[in-house]
Amino acid sequence: MNVTIRGRTRPYRTVSFETETNRVALIEQRLLPHEFAVIKTNDFRQTARAITDMVVRGAGAIGATAAYGFAQGARAFRGSDLKKFARHIEQVYQTLKAARPTAVDPVNAMNQVRTIMSAGETVEEKKAMALAAAEEFAQEDVQHCRELGRHGARLIRNGMKILTHCNAGWLAFVDIGSATAPLYAAQAQGKRFHVYCDETRPRSQGATLTAWELAQQEISHQVIADNAAGLLMQRGKIDLVIVGSDRTLGRTGEVANKIGTYTKAVLAHRHGIPFYVAIPLSTIDWNLRSGMAIPIEERHESEVLGAWGVVEEHETGSRRPNGQGPRAYVRVANPTSGAFNPGFDVTPAGLITGIITPAGIFKPDQLWKNRRELGCSTR
Amino acid sequence: MNVTIRGRTRPYRTVSFETETNRVALIEQRLLPHEFAVIKTNDFRQTARAITDMVVRGAGAIGATAAYGFAQGARAFRGSDLKKFARHIEQVYQTLKAARPTAVDPVNAMNQVRTIMSAGETVEEKKAMALAAAEEFAQEDVQHCRELGRHGARLIRNGMKILTHCNAGWLAFVDIGSATAPLYAAQAQGKRFHVYCDETRPRSQGATLTAWELAQQEISHQVIADNAAGLLMQRGKIDLVIVGSDRTLGRTGEVANKIGTYTKAVLAHRHGIPFYVAIPLSTIDWNLRSGMAIPIEERHESEVLGAWGVVEEHETGSRRPNGQGPRAYVRVANPTSGAFNPGFDVTPAGLITGIITPAGIFKPDQLWKNRRELGCSTR
Repeated sequence: MNVTIRGRTRPYRTVSFETETNRVALIEQRLLPHEFAVIKTNDFRQTARAITDMVVRGAGAIGATAAYGFAQGARAFRGSDLKKFARHIEQVYQTLKAARPTAVDPVNAMNQVRTIMSAGETVEEKKAMALAAAEEFAQEDVQHCRELGRHGARLIRNGMKILTHCNAGWLAFVDIGSATAPLYAAQAQGKRFHVYCDETRPRSQGATLTAWELAQQEISHQVIADNAAGLLMQRGKIDLVIVGSDRTLGRTGEVANKIGTYTKAVLAHRHGIPFYVAIPLSTIDWNLRSGMAIPIEERHESEVLGAWGVVEEHETGSRRPNGQGPRAYVRVANPTSGAFNPGFDVTPAGLITGIITPAGIFKPDQLWKNRRELGCSTR
Repeated sequence: MNVTIRGRTRPYRTVSFETETNRVALIEQRLLPHEFAVIKTNDFRQTARAITDMVVRGAGAIGATAAYGFAQGARAFRGSDLKKFARHIEQVYQTLKAARPTAVDPVNAMNQVRTIMSAGETVEEKKAMALAAAEEFAQEDVQHCRELGRHGARLIRNGMKILTHCNAGWLAFVDIGSATAPLYAAQAQGKRFHVYCDETRPRSQGATLTAWELAQQEISHQVIADNAAGLLMQRGKIDLVIVGSDRTLGRTGEVANKIGTYTKAVLAHRHGIPFYVAIPLSTIDWNLRSGMAIPIEERHESEVLGAWGVVEEHETGSRRPNGQGPRAYVRVANPTSGAFNPGFDVTPAGLITGIITPAGIFKPDQLWKNRRELGCSTR
């Protein structure tokens, strides 16, 4: 997507590759929204470190980063000995796999690249095929988000007011995003609309990442407290809700997503407002038979008890507006109180109007029936 | 209520009066929850300033502060000339009235004191009557909260998990509070229960004031993100919801309260969880005929775009845990985005199980029928 820095507009991808220098270029997401920077990793170890340190996050984005890091590692090999190359490649694979041990996307991405690469007969051939496969993996991610956006954009009419929750934007993918894809596609079609971004406490991804994305694309938007959506719906100020998903159950149509998603679905249902979930096919879980079986991750209480941001004002009266101060964590809550911090919730199929996928829009209870089309290999 | 500072436990009221020194003692609420201090005003001008500067806030609390400030001003008069005394009193009245021009409680409180005082025949008599009337006003506030608590405590059973929103606690009244009153009464009866405090963005009164109050009274509690209540209800972890109210419509049973209250009512209704509103009689509006007629106050966007707290950690790596750092405002949201910040919402009667008042618990649609008992003077 386009990013404008000091008046200069350039297209960026969250993750890309520099063939000449053999470097992976990553948007440094830990600095956003207060600063925009791209870092470039010189070798696969640095790339693995960037995944570990959350320079890059989001399923599609870390998959592509691992694919590029794998090709980067292969291309750094000196010599033509196939056995030595194989040992080297195994080390690259294990290093990148260990970068985020619980994530499945880096492993799937590297397996795809490795399989294609295995057809090469010389080291040089294998290197070239690894790079081509990594590029193809990243391009597929972009293409899927684009198709998803094309389907979703049909739901958006001129003048609509749209609610989003959390960030399933282009920063979580190689480009375009899932929940944001219909917005970008509709804008490209010349439609005008307004987006309310739930701030999405406790980690505030709506106020930070989604708001930054929409500002960069010049889409009209405002941040709201998570508490405010009910009033907006009451007063007729929301026409459509679009959210992303961490895991969608293919058998039941239930959607696990960032904490607070369920609340917005309940409110939308009460007010007869369409509630859509936008997902890439890779987030569909074809095995689990009930949302109650999804374990709810409990995160650290410090996220709820305070907030990270840029210091703008001290009680001493000093002010440093416009994000010029240092980043800091402030404790907001009573110092002797603890917190309970569940990371996501599960929205039942009955509250969901439709699931927007690269293959089209489906009713949540129709996923299983259309599982072949949706890439399911389970019987 | 009891407050424990450095191991020493003492009872405090939010507002009280020192007869010997003619000073009003106020809990300095702007420092809470990070610091506890009581400030004492030396004259009625300082008392007015304390109201203006939000040292004290909350309907019951600022009413009592104005009543005490009025008596304080009367008692500071030197001489026995009734005409000069009357002119002095008028100045005291206008100064305290102007302290928070839109609030109705200080005016009602001072009118009550002035009416009683007018029966005095000498300056000395009037001074004594003003003090007695102010004490009576404060004591009535305490007594009403206590009665409300006694009725509400009947709803609380051992082992319950209770959700609250915002702060309608003793800090907003002279003592005990409205939404918190049933909790304190149930605790005094030996009941054990757990309270989830919505952090209540954007001003975080749940995380700061309610959590501080409950910690001081040693009531088991945890702060949660406003987004988390839906999940807790889904998983059977909430048995009862109690909130306060800024304005309750006597004719319709609709309840205006802090933004996000409506959302919790919708969720509770979906899950069949009792939802109660605890109010002093003074917040019932017997005139308005529809909640849609209540104007929604829009507050400054900086509340949504960032947070106030005590700096605990800098990105430089320096740490000052346990509230030892300076207070600061951090900008959380994208610097080029704005916010929409409505201050409260309106919950329809159909979502409310009951209204807890000093006169008993009423179905919301039964307020009008019982208006005499509830202190309504409208025909």
